[in-house]
Amino acid sequence: MDYQKILDEITSQTAYLQGKGEVASYIPELAKVDSHHFGISLHFLEGNHFQLGDAETRFSIQSIAKVFSLSMAIRLLDETIFERVGVEPSGTAFNSLLQLDYEQGIPRNPFINAGALVISDILVSELEQPKQALLAFVRKLSANPEIGFNPAVAASEKLQGYRNTALANLLKSHGNLHNEVEEVLDFYFHLCSIEMSCKELSRTFLVFANHGKIPGTKEEILSTSQAKRLNALMQTCGFYDEAGEFSFTVGLPGKSGVGGGIVAIHPEKYSISVWSPKLNKKGNSVRGMKALELFTTKSGLSVF
Amino acid sequence: MDYQKILDEITSQTAYLQGKGEVASYIPELAKVDSHHFGISLHFLEGNHFQLGDAETRFSIQSIAKVFSLSMAIRLLDETIFERVGVEPSGTAFNSLLQLDYEQGIPRNPFINAGALVISDILVSELEQPKQALLAFVRKLSANPEIGFNPAVAASEKLQGYRNTALANLLKSHGNLHNEVEEVLDFYFHLCSIEMSCKELSRTFLVFANHGKIPGTKEEILSTSQAKRLNALMQTCGFYDEAGEFSFTVGLPGKSGVGGGIVAIHPEKYSISVWSPKLNKKGNSVRGMKALELFTTKSGLSVF
Amino acid sequence: MDYQKILDEITSQTAYLQGKGEVASYIPELAKVDSHHFGISLHFLEGNHFQLGDAETRFSIQSIAKVFSLSMAIRLLDETIFERVGVEPSGTAFNSLLQLDYEQGIPRNPFINAGALVISDILVSELEQPKQALLAFVRKLSANPEIGFNPAVAASEKLQGYRNTALANLLKSHGNLHNEVEEVLDFYFHLCSIEMSCKELSRTFLVFANHGKIPGTKEEILSTSQAKRLNALMQTCGFYDEAGEFSFTVGLPGKSGVGGGIVAIHPEKYSISVWSPKLNKKGNSVRGMKALELFTTKSGLSVF
Amino acid sequence: MDYQKILDEITSQTAYLQGKGEVASYIPELAKVDSHHFGISLHFLEGNHFQLGDAETRFSIQSIAKVFSLSMAIRLLDETIFERVGVEPSGTAFNSLLQLDYEQGIPRNPFINAGALVISDILVSELEQPKQALLAFVRKLSANPEIGFNPAVAASEKLQGYRNTALANLLKSHGNLHNEVEEVLDFYFHLCSIEMSCKELSRTFLVFANHGKIPGTKEEILSTSQAKRLNALMQTCGFYDEAGEFSFTVGLPGKSGVGGGIVAIHPEKYSISVWSPKLNKKGNSVRGMKALELFTTKSGLSVF
Repeated sequence: MDYQKILDEITSQTAYLQGKGEVASYIPELAKVDSHHFGISLHFLEGNHFQLGDAETRFSIQSIAKVFSLSMAIRLLDETIFERVGVEPSGTAFNSLLQLDYEQGIPRNPFINAGALVISDILVSELEQPKQALLAFVRKLSANPEIGFNPAVAASEKLQGYRNTALANLLKSHGNLHNEVEEVLDFYFHLCSIEMSCKELSRTFLVFANHGKIPGTKEEILSTSQAKRLNALMQTCGFYDEAGEFSFTVGLPGKSGVGGGIVAIHPEKYSISVWSPKLNKKGNSVRGMKALELFTTKSGLSVF
Repeated sequence: MDYQKILDEITSQTAYLQGKGEVASYIPELAKVDSHHFGISLHFLEGNHFQLGDAETRFSIQSIAKVFSLSMAIRLLDETIFERVGVEPSGTAFNSLLQLDYEQGIPRNPFINAGALVISDILVSELEQPKQALLAFVRKLSANPEIGFNPAVAASEKLQGYRNTALANLLKSHGNLHNEVEEVLDFYFHLCSIEMSCKELSRTFLVFANHGKIPGTKEEILSTSQAKRLNALMQTCGFYDEAGEFSFTVGLPGKSGVGGGIVAIHPEKYSISVWSPKLNKKGNSVRGMKALELFTTKSGLSVF
Repeated sequence: MDYQKILDEITSQTAYLQGKGEVASYIPELAKVDSHHFGISLHFLEGNHFQLGDAETRFSIQSIAKVFSLSMAIRLLDETIFERVGVEPSGTAFNSLLQLDYEQGIPRNPFINAGALVISDILVSELEQPKQALLAFVRKLSANPEIGFNPAVAASEKLQGYRNTALANLLKSHGNLHNEVEEVLDFYFHLCSIEMSCKELSRTFLVFANHGKIPGTKEEILSTSQAKRLNALMQTCGFYDEAGEFSFTVGLPGKSGVGGGIVAIHPEKYSISVWSPKLNKKGNSVRGMKALELFTTKSGLSVF
Repeated sequence: MDYQKILDEITSQTAYLQGKGEVASYIPELAKVDSHHFGISLHFLEGNHFQLGDAETRFSIQSIAKVFSLSMAIRLLDETIFERVGVEPSGTAFNSLLQLDYEQGIPRNPFINAGALVISDILVSELEQPKQALLAFVRKLSANPEIGFNPAVAASEKLQGYRNTALANLLKSHGNLHNEVEEVLDFYFHLCSIEMSCKELSRTFLVFANHGKIPGTKEEILSTSQAKRLNALMQTCGFYDEAGEFSFTVGLPGKSGVGGGIVAIHPEKYSISVWSPKLNKKGNSVRGMKALELFTTKSGLSVF
């Protein structure tokens, strides 16, 4: 199959969507991004790589980074982390606070903000220098020592982070945050400020398509069983309130971020990432969602 | 791989769970079932079949039948049905009524009761004799003319069906039920009363593992794209409030019923079903969930 | 104080509101009413009576009638009814179904629909011919044998009563409705269809301002303690989601109905009723609310 | 009527309740209080005063102080404050966060914590030295220059104040908190730490029974209309999730605090306060609630 041609077609067939949606505005630094970017990158486990557009421009990966922090927590404590965070989809966002209270401070899953805060709390507890350790981990996975935080984005999120601060305090009131709220939030805001390009993302996520082993070095990051479970979580919980829609139209495990990036994997086959900054009302990239839908339709490569 | 041996191991390794959980008691007829049954059946697309225990004893498949009614609705109206029912997981059951109201009478997905009622309403509108048409459809899929309703179970559900009647009236108040409440409920209660054995279930569900084509006759029941979407829905919404857990531990699209049955598929590979009547608090078979977890662990055959 | 002059002033100072709001449209028969009506009536315990406008035109008193059914239930079973219905305000309407479920089928108070259905169920259980008994009770309180149901309104509510049917079934599923849903709803829809004029309402409600004794005959309908509690319930729960607002701006116990009527009392002093069919978004008469606010401001006669 | 005798009877008839309930434990300093205290104090507007038990022992008045801060805000900005906080009862506590979000950050009323935080924010904005101004105000109302904060209690609340911090941040995320979260919380925790005795409370609250004028000096603290509205708010919202119950059994406007104090007023007649530290599950003093119920029953002096 001519994958480069498929990427070409996808690019032209989704061009009409570039202006649709809105750039995330609640984080002032993110609102400054040029909304005309579009990039796509495809890595096969067997080694082939295809890309198009701004595939090598770095952007704020935001919630996509929650996959990295979750991986670190699983490596450190394995399944015990699921005593503090669930594995179920979260339903509508509007009642997330109700749900968190109703379920005694146990977030529904590690990808909603409350869950990612609990995971952050775990890493802050377990690691000497959690921010450095996080960067080291991502750099190893990506075989790229240049990947880093964007301090301006982290600072910008902190300034407007009232809702996340509310969540962290609610978790604390239920006893499900062990460190100081400020320390956990500082880690969390840095996590979300990591910058990567589409090319770097799709290459890095190959590890999750490869049963948890880094393709080149064969180093085991997660056990086969751990990788399977992480992928299952991406499938059911990776897209805020659109996990069902993504599963339905694209049919791959994946994760999105409000920076406009999306990355998805096909276990044992490939990893694909796309970036277009304008978001739909659920917080997912408008053009990115359509591009991935077209990819699995054209290539026939979905898990279902 | 010696699948018969795997089924043997699973059976003995889950035997300790046979007494755990509770038989569904809100439907008096279901409460009468002998809780000691256990059956498992595995059909590969390529033709091999393995089974163990009470794999040929029929039981009330209950919500598993929602996959059949949804398939019929998709055949009749394709994607337009998703204007009346969503494709997102539903979050906790406790706020399902709130959510239904908040979302203006559009159920979150076709597998929660409210969604299955809307699908039932569609079939009642579109078909001359909906109950007969349903049976004919299931009999064709299963190549088995003997499959039928259990009228005692349907009557028993009707007598205690206050919550479903409440849901149907709430849908009606939002304009998302076009037929008379009684007519829709009558269809719905018959749908849930269908009886099949594990062997019949796993054989019948091969059609969903086979891109929507009946394996023997190659007849197209659903298009490839439709089958993919149906499977995605089973993955994200097939297990009440345990869809994440099932995806996480088993890693297959599937559907459970309060009769204690579960069926799951691996696209392009196989279909497996299990039956054990005692349920956990979320309404899924205790031993059945564990049996399927062991199967994908032992066989290595999950989609993730 | 010249009360006739106060009624004159109120009438002219609220005239600009006559066109504001909307007539209740979900009950087709109510939607037919001429929205230009405005009536007001004031009865003092000591005997004086003042009225203005369409004070002798009967209208559908709707939820105001819940005060009569509650009085009957209190007479029959006294405080034991509060094992099946609470005495707390209900918060926003949007989560009433959630609340009812969360609180195991115990409605928050007897004036929300779910609570009035439970009270109706009690009367259906306790009385031989509940509808006739209800009419006899209201006729005795009002010393007016002509007061009756409007069968067209009752039938109209029944035809569109999906939401009330949903509530009744939900109550039934929680075991808090002992009779058949249809029988309870039939009583409830008749209750809400009672027609009275402002003059009849203010005269009849004097009993609640008079410690439960009918002013003329001194017959005890409720004990002093029972009357006090009924008045407290009108104060905290009598105006749907505007009980606080009414208490805040008017300062009297009272009850409104979607027919546009409102009646309020000042214990030991007077009873006042007003009618204007157009409603605000909370379901209370726009002009009626303002008229009563002006009355307590001008007369200085509020309980606070 | 022999009020001293009534207080005697109430004291002996409620003695069996002294051990019932639990002292508030989430604030460590409050948990240290001796739970055997019981005091009651009654002031009539005409000048008579009656008291019994520990009526002159100061305790932490906690949420009762919200009546003082609300009075100050009304004096400063009159009705405009109700653009930022509602006047409706709040329904169950369990969905307060949902409700706050659903209503765009406008708390249901000024007595729930979220509402009192908004009122605190208003005072922090409007006053040069808000804490000193608050003390000066309470000292003037009580004609008692010794009333003050308990710094240990304020500090203790701050240390455990995660839920209030969550609320404040949620308000901030909705734009309904104009000052820094820390500053508003500091004021709020000091407000709740004010200490007064039953005798001081009942004397001070006479101003609300006296149309807003200090009985001795006749100084107008609130206009007649403002006092009426404040009393209406106490009636419908003064007792957390038990406002209906208090209105129903006691029949007076009032306010409770988790320190075990309750104060209630009868407009134009009297003010009564009671203190007993053990609380029911709704957070109100067990013995205090019963004592006030007995008082209005025995004296016949309720507003209904």
